[in-house]
Amino acid sequence: MLSQQYKDMCNTPSVIRALSVYATERGKEIGYENVFDYSLGNPSVPVPDEFNKAICDLIKEKTSAQLHGYSPNPGNPEVRQIVADSLKRRFGLDYKAEHIFMTSAAASAIAHALRCVTVPGDEVITFAPFFPEYNPYVNQTGAKLKVVPADTESFQINFDAFKEMLNPNVQAVLINTPNNPSGIAYSSETLTKLADILRAAQEEYGHEIFLISDEPYREIVFKGSDAPYVSKFYDNTISCYSFSKSLSIPGERIGYVAVNPKAKDAEMIVPMCVQISRGTGHNCPSSIIQMAMARCIDMTSDLSVYETNMNILYDELTALGFTVVRPGGTFYIFPKALEEDANAFCEKAKKYDLILVPSDSFGVKGYFRMAYCIDTEKVKRSLVALRKFVKEEYGG
Amino acid sequence: MLSQQYKDMCNTPSVIRALSVYATERGKEIGYENVFDYSLGNPSVPVPDEFNKAICDLIKEKTSAQLHGYSPNPGNPEVRQIVADSLKRRFGLDYKAEHIFMTSAAASAIAHALRCVTVPGDEVITFAPFFPEYNPYVNQTGAKLKVVPADTESFQINFDAFKEMLNPNVQAVLINTPNNPSGIAYSSETLTKLADILRAAQEEYGHEIFLISDEPYREIVFKGSDAPYVSKFYDNTISCYSFSKSLSIPGERIGYVAVNPKAKDAEMIVPMCVQISRGTGHNCPSSIIQMAMARCIDMTSDLSVYETNMNILYDELTALGFTVVRPGGTFYIFPKALEEDANAFCEKAKKYDLILVPSDSFGVKGYFRMAYCIDTEKVKRSLVALRKFVKEEYGG
Repeated sequence: MLSQQYKDMCNTPSVIRALSVYATERGKEIGYENVFDYSLGNPSVPVPDEFNKAICDLIKEKTSAQLHGYSPNPGNPEVRQIVADSLKRRFGLDYKAEHIFMTSAAASAIAHALRCVTVPGDEVITFAPFFPEYNPYVNQTGAKLKVVPADTESFQINFDAFKEMLNPNVQAVLINTPNNPSGIAYSSETLTKLADILRAAQEEYGHEIFLISDEPYREIVFKGSDAPYVSKFYDNTISCYSFSKSLSIPGERIGYVAVNPKAKDAEMIVPMCVQISRGTGHNCPSSIIQMAMARCIDMTSDLSVYETNMNILYDELTALGFTVVRPGGTFYIFPKALEEDANAFCEKAKKYDLILVPSDSFGVKGYFRMAYCIDTEKVKRSLVALRKFVKEEYGG
Repeated sequence: MLSQQYKDMCNTPSVIRALSVYATERGKEIGYENVFDYSLGNPSVPVPDEFNKAICDLIKEKTSAQLHGYSPNPGNPEVRQIVADSLKRRFGLDYKAEHIFMTSAAASAIAHALRCVTVPGDEVITFAPFFPEYNPYVNQTGAKLKVVPADTESFQINFDAFKEMLNPNVQAVLINTPNNPSGIAYSSETLTKLADILRAAQEEYGHEIFLISDEPYREIVFKGSDAPYVSKFYDNTISCYSFSKSLSIPGERIGYVAVNPKAKDAEMIVPMCVQISRGTGHNCPSSIIQMAMARCIDMTSDLSVYETNMNILYDELTALGFTVVRPGGTFYIFPKALEEDANAFCEKAKKYDLILVPSDSFGVKGYFRMAYCIDTEKVKRSLVALRKFVKEEYGG
C-alpha cells in the first residue's frame, strides 16, 4: 500500500512554488521581462569560468576510474582535506579531513546532522523567521520542530522566548545565518549569548545540545555587517554548507558537514553520517563535481550584484514608508506588509506584476519576502510598479 | 546526544570493505598486480568517450543557469522524458515522464521506493543470496527485512519457502536480477511464478504488494541468458535503475525510479518520491550529469570483458571440481566453497593472494563471491594461484 503520510504531503503545495509557477504563466502572457518575480532564491549570477574549466581539465587529466569511480562514502579524501584546510585557514579552527563529510548540498548535510544528534521524539528548536523546509527536514526524522517566535525589531534572536522553550528533550538547535528569509546575519553578541545559554542548558540537563548551523549564504555578506563564523562560538557545532549560492551551482548538489573539532565525540560524527547515508540512499555528491569544486575552493561567483540590488530595494522601501530591517547578507529582504494580512497584501501586489512571498510559511505573520537574485536593471524597473502599488492600494 | 543506533553501526565493519582494504595493503607489499583482488564490484571498463564529450559540449552550449541551476525535484523534465521514451522503446511499457524520478543511483531509488510503499513495522521480503546493503536500506525505514533462504540448485527462487513467509504484513518484495552475488538472472518462468503468487496474495490480503526491482546489472547479460524485463510480468512494479555499471560511472551517482504505468496509483508515486526526498535531503542527481547521461541513454561501456572473464573462471572452477551455477550476467560468480566454513576457505585463499568474499553476509553459508570486474590478463594469471590453492589446501 502507498504510504498515507507521503500521499497527504502531496496535497500541501508550497506557497513559494505556486507563486513561481504563477510568475512563469504570467510571463507567457506579458513577457517574463515584465513580471517582477521576487519569488525564488535561485542564483542569478553565473558560475565562475574556473569551475567549468576545472571539469574539462579533469576529463583530460584523469582516467575514467579516477574521475567517475566510486568515492569512499564520506567523500573523496583529497577533496575533504582541501575543504578542511580551507576552513582552518579562514576560520582558525583545527579542522582535519576526518571532520568533513561531503553531501548533496545543505539539505543533505542537515538531514545527516539531525539524524546524528537526535532520535525520534526529541525536540529541535529553530528561530522564526525560518526556511519552511526545516519542517520536513526535522519531522521526517521523527523528531519535533519547535519554533521560537521572531524578534521582529532586529530579526536577531528572541532570547526570552528561547529560554522558555528550552527543556531536557531539546537535543539540537537549528540556525540559519545569514538568514533566509530575513537577510539578517546573527551578530557576535547574539552568537555569544546563544552559546552561553546552550552551555548552561547542557550543564543543567546533563547532555549535549548540538548547534546545527545552516550556512548556504555564508559568502554573501554585505559591507559593515557583523557575520561571524558560528562554530567559533560553540564547540558542539555542526556546520552545514552548500556551494549552491557561493558558486551558483544549485543543480550540482554539493556541500558538506563540517564538525567542530572540539565537539563531543567529534571523530565519531562523520562515521555516523556514513551509516546514516546507507539508509537514506545518499552516497556522496558526484565525483567529478567534488573534484571541480575543490579546484575552486576559495572562489565565489561575482556576488556583488546582490548587495547592489539590496541597496536599491532598501532605499526605495524605506522611502515608501515600509518598516524594514537592513539585510546583512543573502539575497533576501523581509519588509513588514502594509496591512496586517500579508497574504492579502501579496495578492494585491500581483495586480502590479510584483511577485512577493507572504511570510506565514516562514513562521511570522504580516511580512513578505523578496528574493532579489535577479538583474539589477529589472530591480530598477520594478520600483515603478512598487510605487504604483503602494500609492493605489495604500495611498502611500 | 549522539544517536546510539548509528554509533553502534560504526562498529560493524563490512566484510567486503575489510577484504578490499587488506588487498590494497597487501598490494603495497608485493605489488597490487600480484594480488588477485576479487573483492569489490567496481566497474573496470572505461566510460564511453561520448559521456565525457557530452559534458564538455554541454559546457559550451548551455548558460550557467541552464547547466548548473536547480532541477525540479523529480529531475530535469527533458531527461525524464528521454528515460521514459527509451524504456518504452526497449520494453514496450507505456512509460511517460511522470513515471520517472531521477535519483542518486540505485541505492537512492530503493530508499525512495521503500518509503513509498511501506510504513514502519511492515515487512519486506527479499531472496538469498542478496546484496548486504538491503539490511540498512530496509531497516532504517522502520520496516523489517525478511530473507527467503536460497535455492542453491539454481539460485532462482525458493518458492516453497517464499509462500511460507508471505503474510498480510508484507507490503513489498525486493529482488535483484541479474543478481549480486550469484550472477544469476531470474528466468521468465521464475518471474511468471513470482507474479502469480504476488497477485494471489494481493487478492487474499486485500492490499497491494509492490515489487521493487533493483536493476543495476540489467545491461550486463551474457549470451543465451533468459533475463527478461521484470516490470513486464507484474503491474505493481517499481524499477530501480543505476547507470553505475552500464556506463561505468558509479562515482557520479545517477539512476532513476521507473513506476510501471499500470501500477496502482502510478501517477502518485513520483510526487510521493518528491516528498520523501525533502526529508532525506536528497534532491536530484547533479544537473550536468543528468544531461550528459541523457545524451548517452541507449549506450553502454564495452561490457564484453565481463563475459570473457566469466567464461574463463567458470571453465576453470568447474574443471577444478567446484560446484558452480553458470552466471547469466553481472560481473560476479558464486561457487560453493571446498569446505563447509566459507570464512575459513576464504581465509586460506588469502595465503595465495586470492581475495574471495565469503557468502555469509549475502545470506547463504558455504559459498564465496568473486567480483571479476578486473583485467582479463589478471584473471588468467589468477588461475595459477587458484590451482595451487586448491591442490595444496584440498588435494584437488
